[in-house]
Amino acid sequence: MRKVPANDVYMRPSFLRTLMDRVADKMIPYQWETLNDRVPDAAPSYCIRNLKAAAGLIDAPHGGCVFQDSDLAKWIEAASYMLIWRRDAATEANIDYAVELMEKAQMADGYLDTYYQLTGIEKRFTNLRDNHELYCAGHLLEGAVAYYEATGKRRFLDVMLRYIDLIDATFGLEDGKKKGYPGHEEIELALVKLYQITKDPKHLRLAKYFIDERGSTPNYFAEEAKARGDGPGWSRSVYSENRYYQAGAPVREQQSALGHAVRQVYLLIGMAEVARETGDETLKAACDRMWKDITRRQMYITGAVGQTAFGEAFTFDYDLPNDTVYGETCASIAMFFFAQSMLGLSPNGEYGDVMDTMLYNGTISGMNLEGNRFFYVNPLECVPMRSLKSQIISHIRPERQKWFGCACCPPNLARMITKLPGSVFTEADDTLYMNLFTCCDAETELSGGKAALGCDTRYPCDGRVSIKIKRSFEGFRLALRLPGWVKSYTLTLNGASVVTVMDDGYIFLDQLKAGDAIEYDMHMPVNAVFAHPAVSQDAGLVAIKRGPVVYCLEEIDNGDMLSNVSISPDAEFKADFLPDKLGGIVEISCPAKRVSLAGWDEYELYALDRKPCYDDFTARFVPYYSWNNRGKGEMRVWVRTH
Amino acid sequence: MRKVPANDVYMRPSFLRTLMDRVADKMIPYQWETLNDRVPDAAPSYCIRNLKAAAGLIDAPHGGCVFQDSDLAKWIEAASYMLIWRRDAATEANIDYAVELMEKAQMADGYLDTYYQLTGIEKRFTNLRDNHELYCAGHLLEGAVAYYEATGKRRFLDVMLRYIDLIDATFGLEDGKKKGYPGHEEIELALVKLYQITKDPKHLRLAKYFIDERGSTPNYFAEEAKARGDGPGWSRSVYSENRYYQAGAPVREQQSALGHAVRQVYLLIGMAEVARETGDETLKAACDRMWKDITRRQMYITGAVGQTAFGEAFTFDYDLPNDTVYGETCASIAMFFFAQSMLGLSPNGEYGDVMDTMLYNGTISGMNLEGNRFFYVNPLECVPMRSLKSQIISHIRPERQKWFGCACCPPNLARMITKLPGSVFTEADDTLYMNLFTCCDAETELSGGKAALGCDTRYPCDGRVSIKIKRSFEGFRLALRLPGWVKSYTLTLNGASVVTVMDDGYIFLDQLKAGDAIEYDMHMPVNAVFAHPAVSQDAGLVAIKRGPVVYCLEEIDNGDMLSNVSISPDAEFKADFLPDKLGGIVEISCPAKRVSLAGWDEYELYALDRKPCYDDFTARFVPYYSWNNRGKGEMRVWVRTH
Repeated sequence: MRKVPANDVYMRPSFLRTLMDRVADKMIPYQWETLNDRVPDAAPSYCIRNLKAAAGLIDAPHGGCVFQDSDLAKWIEAASYMLIWRRDAATEANIDYAVELMEKAQMADGYLDTYYQLTGIEKRFTNLRDNHELYCAGHLLEGAVAYYEATGKRRFLDVMLRYIDLIDATFGLEDGKKKGYPGHEEIELALVKLYQITKDPKHLRLAKYFIDERGSTPNYFAEEAKARGDGPGWSRSVYSENRYYQAGAPVREQQSALGHAVRQVYLLIGMAEVARETGDETLKAACDRMWKDITRRQMYITGAVGQTAFGEAFTFDYDLPNDTVYGETCASIAMFFFAQSMLGLSPNGEYGDVMDTMLYNGTISGMNLEGNRFFYVNPLECVPMRSLKSQIISHIRPERQKWFGCACCPPNLARMITKLPGSVFTEADDTLYMNLFTCCDAETELSGGKAALGCDTRYPCDGRVSIKIKRSFEGFRLALRLPGWVKSYTLTLNGASVVTVMDDGYIFLDQLKAGDAIEYDMHMPVNAVFAHPAVSQDAGLVAIKRGPVVYCLEEIDNGDMLSNVSISPDAEFKADFLPDKLGGIVEISCPAKRVSLAGWDEYELYALDRKPCYDDFTARFVPYYSWNNRGKGEMRVWVRTH
Repeated sequence: MRKVPANDVYMRPSFLRTLMDRVADKMIPYQWETLNDRVPDAAPSYCIRNLKAAAGLIDAPHGGCVFQDSDLAKWIEAASYMLIWRRDAATEANIDYAVELMEKAQMADGYLDTYYQLTGIEKRFTNLRDNHELYCAGHLLEGAVAYYEATGKRRFLDVMLRYIDLIDATFGLEDGKKKGYPGHEEIELALVKLYQITKDPKHLRLAKYFIDERGSTPNYFAEEAKARGDGPGWSRSVYSENRYYQAGAPVREQQSALGHAVRQVYLLIGMAEVARETGDETLKAACDRMWKDITRRQMYITGAVGQTAFGEAFTFDYDLPNDTVYGETCASIAMFFFAQSMLGLSPNGEYGDVMDTMLYNGTISGMNLEGNRFFYVNPLECVPMRSLKSQIISHIRPERQKWFGCACCPPNLARMITKLPGSVFTEADDTLYMNLFTCCDAETELSGGKAALGCDTRYPCDGRVSIKIKRSFEGFRLALRLPGWVKSYTLTLNGASVVTVMDDGYIFLDQLKAGDAIEYDMHMPVNAVFAHPAVSQDAGLVAIKRGPVVYCLEEIDNGDMLSNVSISPDAEFKADFLPDKLGGIVEISCPAKRVSLAGWDEYELYALDRKPCYDDFTARFVPYYSWNNRGKGEMRVWVRTH
C-alpha cells in the first residue's frame, strides 16, 4: 500500500477543507507570529530568537524548552504541505528566511541544535534520554523533506543531510560509535521519509538501527545517566527500568503501550514504516500487537490516548479515567499518523476508522473554531472549578490557550491538517482505497493506468457519498471503506444495486468505467455507546456518537452539575443540522433528567434513605470537537443512564 | 463543658474495649519494637537511635524524617493513657528509658529536637515552615502531660517545661523575639493541655500567640524563606500565598478548610481549646465556620478528610473523589479530637455523631484486626491494579503496611484508642452527657454531687443501651446523645415510658435516682445513603450504612470489577450478626446485579447500541473498617444504583 500523494488530490469545500482553510488563513500566519514572539500575552516561543543567536546574529541566551527547535520544524512542515494546495509567497519567504537562519546556525560538522549550541556544545549527545536532540533532528528532517516535496528547493534538505551524516557517524553498532537512541522517538520515522526521497540505504539503516537497538542490555539510558552522574529521570515508580522511554525491553518484546504517549506512538510509526520498507515480519507483528493494545484497551472514545498527566503517559489496559485523563493533542495526532502507517502495511478499514476517530474528535478538539486558541490536554469531562482548585486536575485547562511554553501541539495540528490531501486515498496494484470521505477530485497513476474520480459528500454531517468516475482503465478497482459504526448502508452503481465483495472493512467495486456514478449511503443514526465492562470508569455511563463524531454535553446548553444529568439509552434521539451553531453542526437532543437540588439544604452532605428526585429537561449534545467555543463551562462526554 | 476524665470511667468488654485491648496487647509493644528498629522488613523508625545519638551515647547520623521525634512522643502518649486502665511495668520502664534518653539529649538551654541536634544546630528555628520543630515540641509536650497524668511522674514534664521556656523566650511579639509560628500546627493544643496542669498563664498566652499571629502581614513563612534563600515550599499552585500552611490569612478570616488536612484540623483543635479557655467568641465563630465547612462540604461518608494526595490536603467544597482520595488516618483522628474540642465549647449531638463516624469508620480502618498492619491512606475505593500501575492512585496501598518511613498514623491511632475512657462522657453543671455508647461504669463529681452509672450495650452492632443509675444527687441530669441517623427510638425509665426534653441532639432525663434503669433503644435499620447532588463524584451512587457504621463491598465476597455492581436503594437489606466473621460483624446482604461480560470479546472497547446485560447475585457488605483483613482485593463504598 502506498499513499496517493497530496499533489494528486484536490480538496473541494467540505468539513476537511474548512479545517485546511482555517489552518492556512489563521494558524500558519498566527503561529509564525508566535515563533517570532510577536503575539502579545502569549507564552514566548523563542524559536527564531534562538536560531539567530546560534547563527551569531544576535546575542541572546537560549529560551524555552530543550526541544524548542521542533516547534519551528513542525511549522515549516505544516506550511510546506500547505504550499502544495495553496501557493503563498509570503509563507514561502518566511520559510526561506528560517532556512537561511538554520544554514547560518549550522556548525561546520553539521550539528544543529540551538539548545546545545547556546548552552554548552561540549555536552552534546551526552543526554539522549532527556534532551530531545534526536527528536529535534527528526522534526527538522520532516520539515526539510516536506519543503523539498512542496517546492523542490534543496537548501533545507542539504542542511539536514549534513546533520544526518553527523548523526550517522556518531551512532551505531560500529566500533567507536555510541550505541544510543533517542529518549523521545521521532527521528526513526523521519529517516524513512528521507530514505523515500534519497533511496540511500544508509538512511533506512539508521532508522532501523535506532529501533533495533532500543531497550537492549546494558541499557543505554542507564549507562548514559551513570556517566553523567545523573538520576533516573522519569525512570522511576511505575515507569522504572526506563520503561517510560519504551526502553525497558527491545521493541519486539514490548507487550503493551507504556510510558510517554507521544513517544510511544511516534516509535510505533517509525516501526511500521521500517517494517514496510524492509518487510520485517517480526516488527510488523510488534506493531499489530501494540495497535491492538492501544485501540482495544487504552484509547478513549474520543481518540484521546495517554491516561495520566504524570509523565503524559499511558497507564494500563482498561484504565480510562475521564476526569484525570491527559489526552494530549499531539498523542491523538500521532495516532492518526500511526493509523496511516498501519494502512501502509495492510489495507484494513479499522485503520481508517481510527483516522476518522482522531480527525473528527480528539485532534481538532485541540483548536478553536477560529484557529487561534489551543488545547494541549483534551479531557472527557471538565468542571472548571476542579481545574482551578484541585491539583490533580489542574492540567485540564477549562479554556483553550493562546500558546504554551511547551507548544508542541498547535504546529502538530497544523501539519496534520495541511497534509490531509495526502491522507484520503491509498493504492495498491490496480486498487484505489478511499479511506476518508470528503469532497475532492483525484487523479492518480495505478499499476494498470490512470484513474480519476470526483467525490461529493456532507460527511461527517451525513453518510451519503456520491462518486463519479472520470477516468478509468481495464481492471481498475475502487475500495470504499465501510466504517465500523455502519450497521446498514445502500450502494448503487448508475442507479442500480450492485454486487460487491466485502473484505477487511472495505467494499470493492470492480471494473469501473469512466462515467460510472456510485451512490454510497452509510446510514447514520444516533448511537448510544457503552464501554467494555472492564473499564470501571465508564460503568453505568453512556456516550453519544453519530457516525464518527463523538458528542458531549456543555453547560451552556444544559446547565451545570452535568454529573447529575442522566438519559435513557432507549431515548428517542433527535438529530438536527444547525447551520449557524458552532460553524454548522448536527445537534442531538433527547429527553433527560437531572437530580433536583430541591430539599437539599446546604448543610446536609449525606442523607439517609432519601432517593434523588429528578427534574425533566431536554439534553442537547454538541460534537465534542466543538466544545468550549462559547465561553468557559462544564463539559462531559460520558453521561449517566437511567 | 469538660471531659469526664479517664480515671472516672471503667471500660467493660465491648466493641471499644476490644480496640483498647488490641492496642494494649499488640500495638503498644509492637510499636515500641519498631521505634527501636527491631521489626524485620519494616521501614526503619530511627527514633531511639536518633535520641541516643543526640545524647552522645552512640555515633550515628540522624535517620528518618525531620519530624521523627514525634513518633516516639505519640507512642509515649498512647502508652501513658493505657497505663491509666492497664498498669504495665514493662511499658512504664520503656517510657522511663525513653525519658531518660531525652533528658540526656536535651541541651543546656532546653532545646530538644534530634533533627537539628544531629544535622546542624546553628540552623534551628530558621525553617518553621518545613521542618516541624514546633510540631515535634507539641507532641513531646502532649506525651509529657499524658505521662504525668497517668503516673504523676514529673521527669518528662520537667524536660518539656524547660523546652517550652526556651520556645517562649524565642517566639512572640515582644522586641527581639521571632514572630514565628509552626508550619505544622500541634503545639497550640499541647500548650493548652500544659496550661490545664500548670495553670501558668504564660502557657495559654503562648498558645494564643501562635494562633493569633498566624497569617499576619508580612507573612512570616515568606520572610523566613527569603532569609534562607529558599523557594516557596508547598506555597505554590493551588496553595499559593502560604495557604497550604493555613497562613494565607489570619485564622479568624479563613472561610474554608484548605491545605494540609492534619495541620488544618490540629490548628482548629488548638483554636477551639484556646477559645474555651479564654472565652474568645471570634475564635469560637471561626471554629464553627470551619467545622461546618469540613463536616458539611469536605468530609467523606467514612469520616475521611483530605481529598488529595498532592500535599495530603483539602481541595474545595463538594469535591469528594473516591478513587484519588487521601483520607489520612491521622486526619480522621484529628477530626475525632476536633469534635471533642467542639463539644468543650457547647454541647451538641452532632459533635458526638462525628466522633462516632470517625471511631467506627475512617480511623480504625487504619489498622488491621490484629493490630500490626496499618493504612496511612484510607480510600473509599480500591482496585489493586490501579494502585500498582497508575501513579495518581499509587498513594492508595491495597494492603496495610508493617510500618512507614513517615509513620505518624499508627501511634496516633494508638493514642486515640487508649484515651477512649476519657472520650465517653462530658459534663456541665449537674448534667452528665453520654456521647459514646459503650459498656462501662462511670463515677464522677458534678457540681451538685457525685453520680455513678453502669452502661451495657452491643453498640454499634445494635442500638439498645441499658443504663443503671448507681449513685445520684438532687438535680442530677443525664443527657443521652440522639444520633443523627436515628429515625425512631424508644426510651423507658424503670419499664415505663418517660417524658423527656430534647435539645441540640440530646435527650435529657431529669431527676434520676440511684437504682433507676433506663432502656434506650435506637432503632438501627440499614440505611441507603445518598450524597448531596453537588458532589459530582457520588452522582448515581449509594452507600450503605447501619447506625454509625459505613459498609463496603469487598472482592472476596462479591467478585472483582465492583464498579459493575449495582443495587436498588429499595432493595430488602438483610442484616445478620456473624460472630465468626471479621472479629464479629453485622453483615448486610441484598439482591444485586452485575454487568455481564458475556459477549464482550477482548477486542471490543466501545460497543454501539448494546445495552449492558446483567447477572443477578447477592451482594454482601461488610463494615468499612474491616476491609482488607482477608487478603488483597477490590473494595468499594459507593455503589451504583439501578
